[in-house]
Amino acid sequence: MAGSEIDEMIRLLARLPGLGPRSARRAALYLMRRHDTLLVPLAEAMTRAAATITTCSLCNTLDTTDPCAICADTRRDRSTICVVEQVADQWALERSGSYHGLYHVLGGTLSALDGVGPDDLAIASLVHRARTEDVTEVILALNATVDGQTTAHYVADRLAHAGVTISRLAHGLPVGGELDYLDDGTLAAALRARRGV
Amino acid sequence: MAGSEIDEMIRLLARLPGLGPRSARRAALYLMRRHDTLLVPLAEAMTRAAATITTCSLCNTLDTTDPCAICADTRRDRSTICVVEQVADQWALERSGSYHGLYHVLGGTLSALDGVGPDDLAIASLVHRARTEDVTEVILALNATVDGQTTAHYVADRLAHAGVTISRLAHGLPVGGELDYLDDGTLAAALRARRGV
Repeated sequence: MAGSEIDEMIRLLARLPGLGPRSARRAALYLMRRHDTLLVPLAEAMTRAAATITTCSLCNTLDTTDPCAICADTRRDRSTICVVEQVADQWALERSGSYHGLYHVLGGTLSALDGVGPDDLAIASLVHRARTEDVTEVILALNATVDGQTTAHYVADRLAHAGVTISRLAHGLPVGGELDYLDDGTLAAALRARRGV
Repeated sequence: MAGSEIDEMIRLLARLPGLGPRSARRAALYLMRRHDTLLVPLAEAMTRAAATITTCSLCNTLDTTDPCAICADTRRDRSTICVVEQVADQWALERSGSYHGLYHVLGGTLSALDGVGPDDLAIASLVHRARTEDVTEVILALNATVDGQTTAHYVADRLAHAGVTISRLAHGLPVGGELDYLDDGTLAAALRARRGV
């Protein structure tokens, strides 16, 4: 169909989430038609990223420095640690611009089905940080799924004697959400957690 | 949010067709978690492709050699040229495995709205090939769109005195297609071009 270098690029692009064989071919042709403006810059950016990406030894996130930019930022509030499942969740919270403390990336959730136990997640290092650093509050920002909430309960247990306040994100109506389209669980949680006006 | 190398990779990934900002972030994290098995190989494949990709001086396709692998292949039937709009169309025909001649990539269709005239497409070089090579038939495999068919008519006019048979792809039911779901134009074309059983 085309030179082996092109085929190899298509084969690897097709492994990206959201791209299949057809869209990988389309992406490859798009890249090839934009040789100088996209293909070369993207290849260089990926090479640079591959050379610099590392895991932060403090919070377990992915960044180009260790400690990561957030752990190294002296302007961040070092008394709060926000626990998230994945790096993507940390990025989502950063985009919201409403949190200015530190993070801790667990790397997943406990899952008996998938054989993920406490030792597979960065829980011990979290307990260590909560005990030794100037931390006063740990916010459990795990997904509102069964696995996420199970993990949150487990992490809260492990932190029980670390001398920190433990909190979790509020459950309720998403901003802009319509009652008619919400599931019963969310409505029940929003009703239970109702606030005075 | 993350190191500038990661941000730059996400920004460029988001420009690929089929990926937006959110899916580009997801793809970047997916790549970063598969550093050795996907990120590095893909970066290397793209660098190699960028260094070798060229336009075939005969048929105008994209490949890693000039002339391209098909133009250079002595086993191909050199008496037939299949005219396509884009490289992707050539790849689709090659995947079908039902054509063994040469190709000619126009690079688009005539379009008054987009300001694409005959000089913007590889039409003159096609006429030249049809006159000088051992070509006996030119197959117009352009899209069954208004622009595609307009271009096919124009190309057929230009080839009128080149001494070659000019043909086009058949219109009709797609294999596996159901009558109930087909548009009127396709049904009318299939009925007009009906064949004895």
